[in-house]
Amino acid sequence: MLHFGLEFNESSKMHYDGFMEKQRKNIVVVGGGTGVFTVLSGLKKYGHNLSAIVSMADDGGSTGILREEFGILPPGDIRRALVALSDADRLMADLFNYRFEKHGSVSGHSFGNLLITALEQITGDFERAIVEAGKILAVRGEVIPVTLQKTKLHAKLENGKVVAGESNIDIPKHNPELRIKKIFLEPRAKINPRATEAILAADIVVVRPGDLYTSVLPNFLVEGMKQALQNTKAKRVYVCNIMTKHGETHAYKASDFIKEIVRYTGEGGVDYALVNRERPEDHKMKLYHQEYAYFVEPDKNVETAGVKVIFGKFLRTSGSLLRHDPEKLAKAILELDNCN
Amino acid sequence: MLHFGLEFNESSKMHYDGFMEKQRKNIVVVGGGTGVFTVLSGLKKYGHNLSAIVSMADDGGSTGILREEFGILPPGDIRRALVALSDADRLMADLFNYRFEKHGSVSGHSFGNLLITALEQITGDFERAIVEAGKILAVRGEVIPVTLQKTKLHAKLENGKVVAGESNIDIPKHNPELRIKKIFLEPRAKINPRATEAILAADIVVVRPGDLYTSVLPNFLVEGMKQALQNTKAKRVYVCNIMTKHGETHAYKASDFIKEIVRYTGEGGVDYALVNRERPEDHKMKLYHQEYAYFVEPDKNVETAGVKVIFGKFLRTSGSLLRHDPEKLAKAILELDNCN
Repeated sequence: MLHFGLEFNESSKMHYDGFMEKQRKNIVVVGGGTGVFTVLSGLKKYGHNLSAIVSMADDGGSTGILREEFGILPPGDIRRALVALSDADRLMADLFNYRFEKHGSVSGHSFGNLLITALEQITGDFERAIVEAGKILAVRGEVIPVTLQKTKLHAKLENGKVVAGESNIDIPKHNPELRIKKIFLEPRAKINPRATEAILAADIVVVRPGDLYTSVLPNFLVEGMKQALQNTKAKRVYVCNIMTKHGETHAYKASDFIKEIVRYTGEGGVDYALVNRERPEDHKMKLYHQEYAYFVEPDKNVETAGVKVIFGKFLRTSGSLLRHDPEKLAKAILELDNCN
Repeated sequence: MLHFGLEFNESSKMHYDGFMEKQRKNIVVVGGGTGVFTVLSGLKKYGHNLSAIVSMADDGGSTGILREEFGILPPGDIRRALVALSDADRLMADLFNYRFEKHGSVSGHSFGNLLITALEQITGDFERAIVEAGKILAVRGEVIPVTLQKTKLHAKLENGKVVAGESNIDIPKHNPELRIKKIFLEPRAKINPRATEAILAADIVVVRPGDLYTSVLPNFLVEGMKQALQNTKAKRVYVCNIMTKHGETHAYKASDFIKEIVRYTGEGGVDYALVNRERPEDHKMKLYHQEYAYFVEPDKNVETAGVKVIFGKFLRTSGSLLRHDPEKLAKAILELDNCN
């Protein structure tokens, strides 16, 4: 019997499945805040195994009130990561992100935060609460709190003054022209073992863009996080912010962001940095300038400590907010692993 | 070829399926409040099609606050009925019934009420909110608000005084010895067409036990409800309360309850009344006596207006609260349809 062309049989099918399995990467995204959506929503389409490690430093708004009243870990960033990984219909995402009116008896709380709080109170287990909330949202992937210990973020300014609490640093009551000299956690907090496992098993670790000192770097203050990043065989890539932030990263250029990342992750903690070189349209920047936020200069002088900087056009074209385009970002991230 | 005994073939299978379909009854339970669980949880096991029509008069506690602040229909009884019809695991029921602490920023709200409120605010559609909440709870059956119009329950006492608002009648600020002369809705409210449909398509309609004037009878004040009950071919059965309630049904005997049901549903609106004749143990009644609640005497003098009274031992043996046994109640209800 003659065979022409390719033959499909059971053994080649298995081979093909094995190939697909090999192609399915473990991707871990580190960081809380809103940027988590930008990175995860783009990567989600490729069918890789996604995990999100989120910072537990948030203490503002609805999250801050629930922390204080119920003594729980902060639910806000968990909620955002769950929504980003959700496969449920749009209404469920809208529900989780729904915020009750500012005034009245539920005073500005986000529904998802209340859900996580209620589940934590019923089960007495924050991680279980995340899993159960994930079921409701049909989450594909895992959301991992960077630590399970309660801690508070502190910032020391260049004038020596110490600011306590993420929300006090984020929305500065201090002089926002002053640089943040260093940040630290008090009390100290140890890494969640699940975070270590996820990073060590990763093919790619993405440090996502976001408020540098209040939602990105706090992850690396957790004991064991730096080590995990140093010990993993994964490609580690930092995605630099598009705009500066008054009171946190005022007048920072790309090299300043990267230097700080290296400082907190340690030498050799990050392999790549993705830097946007596409200047936004003036009318879109105007809104930002009112808040003293400016375009992050993609300065070329930044082969810092072994970090390979990749410049690209990563800007989202739609919408008035200046965000990374999830699709472009995902492609750039996945290419790092294919080409090296 | 010889055939011995029964033969199973495709045509007899279809006949069998048809028979099963015929056996699956449409059962509609009318009434809000906590009693809805007792009735529905027992009936649920038999695989019939269940619907719960719930009163929209509730304006106390968490529900009352949400009504006022968000201008929505009362979610409390909807939530209880959803939980009663839920096939989800226990944790989901616990979540829906979870109540946040009395003090603090979420001030005693029930989680399920907040969920229904958020869904209503997002979709702008109360019925859609119920359907979506039902999906989360894996509800088998339908929960139907008796009306979609906002209204307020009023009670006229025997001294002529009018009390406005369900919660003011329920937890009386008036002299609780005074009898309620009549109740009415202001503004008037029309029946939800879905409620009419469900009642007309029913095989059995159960008027469940519960606070007579604040959660059972208010259903029949809605325009069109009495007519639906009169026009259905279903067997209509009223389940009488086990205990009286101070300020509502003080010193009522079974015949008093039934008379009031007939008064508000009209002559011929109810076929049967199930009356518990099992006197609870003294130590269990003590707690009730402290609140001036007493055993409802199963007086035999009650063949009122064509209502056939069936006396039975319907008491739940477990727990300290005096409730109907869901299993015994379900059996008694289903027997009515088999034997007649």
